[in-house]
Amino acid sequence: MNPVMQLRNPSYADEITESFSKQTIMGLIGAELSRVEPGLIEITLPYRAELAQQHGYLHAGIVTTIADSACGYAAYSLMPPNSEVLSVEFKVNLLRPAKGETFSAIAEVVKSGKTLTVVRADVFAIDQDRRDLIATMLGTMICLSK
Amino acid sequence: MNPVMQLRNPSYADEITESFSKQTIMGLIGAELSRVEPGLIEITLPYRAELAQQHGYLHAGIVTTIADSACGYAAYSLMPPNSEVLSVEFKVNLLRPAKGETFSAIAEVVKSGKTLTVVRADVFAIDQDRRDLIATMLGTMICLSK
Amino acid sequence: MNPVMQLRNPSYADEITESFSKQTIMGLIGAELSRVEPGLIEITLPYRAELAQQHGYLHAGIVTTIADSACGYAAYSLMPPNSEVLSVEFKVNLLRPAKGETFSAIAEVVKSGKTLTVVRADVFAIDQDRRDLIATMLGTMICLSK
Amino acid sequence: MNPVMQLRNPSYADEITESFSKQTIMGLIGAELSRVEPGLIEITLPYRAELAQQHGYLHAGIVTTIADSACGYAAYSLMPPNSEVLSVEFKVNLLRPAKGETFSAIAEVVKSGKTLTVVRADVFAIDQDRRDLIATMLGTMICLSK
Repeated sequence: MNPVMQLRNPSYADEITESFSKQTIMGLIGAELSRVEPGLIEITLPYRAELAQQHGYLHAGIVTTIADSACGYAAYSLMPPNSEVLSVEFKVNLLRPAKGETFSAIAEVVKSGKTLTVVRADVFAIDQDRRDLIATMLGTMICLSK
Repeated sequence: MNPVMQLRNPSYADEITESFSKQTIMGLIGAELSRVEPGLIEITLPYRAELAQQHGYLHAGIVTTIADSACGYAAYSLMPPNSEVLSVEFKVNLLRPAKGETFSAIAEVVKSGKTLTVVRADVFAIDQDRRDLIATMLGTMICLSK
Repeated sequence: MNPVMQLRNPSYADEITESFSKQTIMGLIGAELSRVEPGLIEITLPYRAELAQQHGYLHAGIVTTIADSACGYAAYSLMPPNSEVLSVEFKVNLLRPAKGETFSAIAEVVKSGKTLTVVRADVFAIDQDRRDLIATMLGTMICLSK
Repeated sequence: MNPVMQLRNPSYADEITESFSKQTIMGLIGAELSRVEPGLIEITLPYRAELAQQHGYLHAGIVTTIADSACGYAAYSLMPPNSEVLSVEFKVNLLRPAKGETFSAIAEVVKSGKTLTVVRADVFAIDQDRRDLIATMLGTMICLSK
C-alpha cells in the first residue's frame, strides 16, 4: 500500500458495510458492495430494464450512482475514526454505451488528505465474454468529524 | 433567444416527451418532465425514502440522474431533426445537503454546436418556505445522426 | 448581494491586489486585475503571439491561468481575515477558438462555505466589434488559515 | 498496445514535434517535449520564478498548460492522417503544492474514438530525491479533419 494510504480506522470495513446498507438507493437499484479494502471499493450492479435511458442502456446517472458511492467509501476507508464522508464534486466521462449484464464500479484513492481525498473510479460493463470500460470518474470527497 | 440557439427541429418537444417516457429510470424514481423549451429543460423529482444515501438525503447519483437527463434534452431541443443525443461527460458540484420535499433540475444550453453542445444545470431542493441551490452541473453532449 | 455572500474581511481588496502582484506568471503573460468586488473578480489579458497554441490562438492553459486566478480571488474576497486560498480542482469547457485582441476572465462565487467555495468563471474574447464567450470554468477553492 | 489504440498515422511523431514547436507558449515558459509514443506523451518543464502563483509555487494554470498539451498530443498520436486536435474540456485536481525543480506531465489515452478521445495526465514535481504526483487531469479531445 502507498505510504500516504495509511489505515487509521481499524473498523472501517464494518462501518462501510453498515453505511452501505443505509443507502436505500442501493437496494432500489439492486447494487451490492463486492470489495472493501483500504483505499479500494467495488460496487456491483446487475442490469435491470427499469434502470435505463431511452435506448435501453444503463442511465449515466445510475453509472454515476455506483461510482460515487464507491469513491465515497474508498475515501472513507482511509479516514480516522468518527469521520463522515461527503462528495464535494465529481466528473464522469462516459466512454462507451452502458450495455451489459452486470456493471462494476471500482474506486481507488489517488490522494488521501486530512480534509480532502481525491478518488478515481472505473466502471465496467461485463458480459460472459467481455469486460469493457464504459465510464471513468475523478472526484473529491471531504472528511467531516461526526 | 440567443442567436446561436436557433431552433431547427419543430417537433423537438414531442420527441423529448416521448424519449423521456422511454427512460425507465425516470419512472422508477418518480421524476417528471416539467418544462420543455428551446434550450431549457426542467425535471422535477419528489423526495422518496428509497432514493437516499446513508443520512437520508437524496443520493448524489440521483441528483446527477435528473440533471443529466435535463442537460441531454436541453441539448437535444436545439439539434436538427433525426438526431440522437448522448452524454459525453459532466462535472457536478454538490453544494448543500440534498434535503427537501421536491427537487428540480433546470438545464440551459451554454453553447450549441454542430457536434457538441455544452449545457449547465442547477438542481434545487424545494420546501414550502425555501428553494436552495444544492448542486450544479457543467456537461458536454454529443449529437449523432440516427 | 446574496445573503450567503457575506463580507468578512474589510481589507480583502488590498490583499487581493497585493497577492496578484506576487503572481509572477501574471507579469510574464501581461495579465491585469481589472475588477475586485465581493465575490466577483475580473482579470484581463491582451493577446500576445508568445501565448499561442499551434494555430496562433491563446493556449487553453493560459485561458485557464487567468480563469483560475480570477476564481481564487473571487473566493478569497469572501473569506475571513488571515485566510489563504488554494485551488482544489476545476473543470474548463473550451467553447470557441480563443481568438481575439483581448481576453477577459470574470469569476463569480456560486457558493461560499467555511472550508470550500465553489466558483464559476466565464472567459470572453474581445475585439472592436464582438465579445464571444470562449470558455467556462467551474471550480472548487479551499480556505486555509494562515 | 491496447487494440483500441491502433496507430493510423505513421508520421505522427514528426507532426507532433513540429506542432509543439509552433506552440509559442511552450517556448515562453521553457517546456520541452520529452516522450512521443503512440497514446503517450511527456512534457517537461524546469521551474522558473516567473511562472509562480503568490507563494512561489508553479501556477495551477501552468500545470494545466503542460498537461493539456500532453493530452492533446497523446490523442493526436492515434488519430488518422490529416487530423487536427482541439481540447473540448478538461478537469484538473491539484493534489499537492507544485513545488519542485522540474515538472513532468505524462498523458495517456484512456479511450480513442473516431470523433472524441478521452485522455488522462499526471503531473509530477521532481527534485533530486523525490517525485510527487501534484496534479491529475481527465480531459476530452476532438478530432477535426484538416
